[in-house]
Amino acid sequence: MRDKVNIAEKLAGVTEYFRPKIVASLNEMKVEVVKVRGEFVWHAHPDTDDFFLVLDGELTVELEDGDVHLGAGELYVVPRGVRHRPRAEQEAHVLLIEPRGTPNTGDAGGELTAREEEI
Amino acid sequence: MRDKVNIAEKLAGVTEYFRPKIVASLNEMKVEVVKVRGEFVWHAHPDTDDFFLVLDGELTVELEDGDVHLGAGELYVVPRGVRHRPRAEQEAHVLLIEPRGTPNTGDAGGELTAREEEI
Repeated sequence: MRDKVNIAEKLAGVTEYFRPKIVASLNEMKVEVVKVRGEFVWHAHPDTDDFFLVLDGELTVELEDGDVHLGAGELYVVPRGVRHRPRAEQEAHVLLIEPRGTPNTGDAGGELTAREEEI
Repeated sequence: MRDKVNIAEKLAGVTEYFRPKIVASLNEMKVEVVKVRGEFVWHAHPDTDDFFLVLDGELTVELEDGDVHLGAGELYVVPRGVRHRPRAEQEAHVLLIEPRGTPNTGDAGGELTAREEEI
């Protein structure tokens, strides 16, 4: 039997912002938790939608045609290919779902690119 | 721009138990909310894993080799092909993610099979 995942316990082990950690798999997808604070990089994922569910705090997903403001219990799916930038004034906790192999920085790359890591 | 999804608002429109409603799409998958109370049917999904995230209340996922008890903020992914039965003593609210076209009753069918419906 696989183990259940307690999200708060997993988040307690996350020490860096913008470094998603894999907590489960769903077919070819990875389910991740991430702590966010500050501004990420503008990027797009040419081959996949990008799922955000805010667990705690507030997250803004900047898009080229406007911002999406999310509070706890709100979700947003960035369509594939759409450029976006997540940001949060204060620490926010987010559940992410994307295909395994999808870099967090999409087509932008750079120093914020995180290694895929289970927690 | 797609709309964000406020999960509580969506759940407020759900009036029947065990009738998932689609609130978003993620590639070929459907993201659903469902209210659960009582026992569902034993079933398996031969072609897909089955994602459960408890939003409110308590959910038990019965498996043939033991029960998984989930509270709010806990998630569990039933591996593809594994027989399971969700049940809840009291009303519970759950987020589900599965490929579009996956029947809620899997290989069991029967009267609890729900039509795919957006909310």
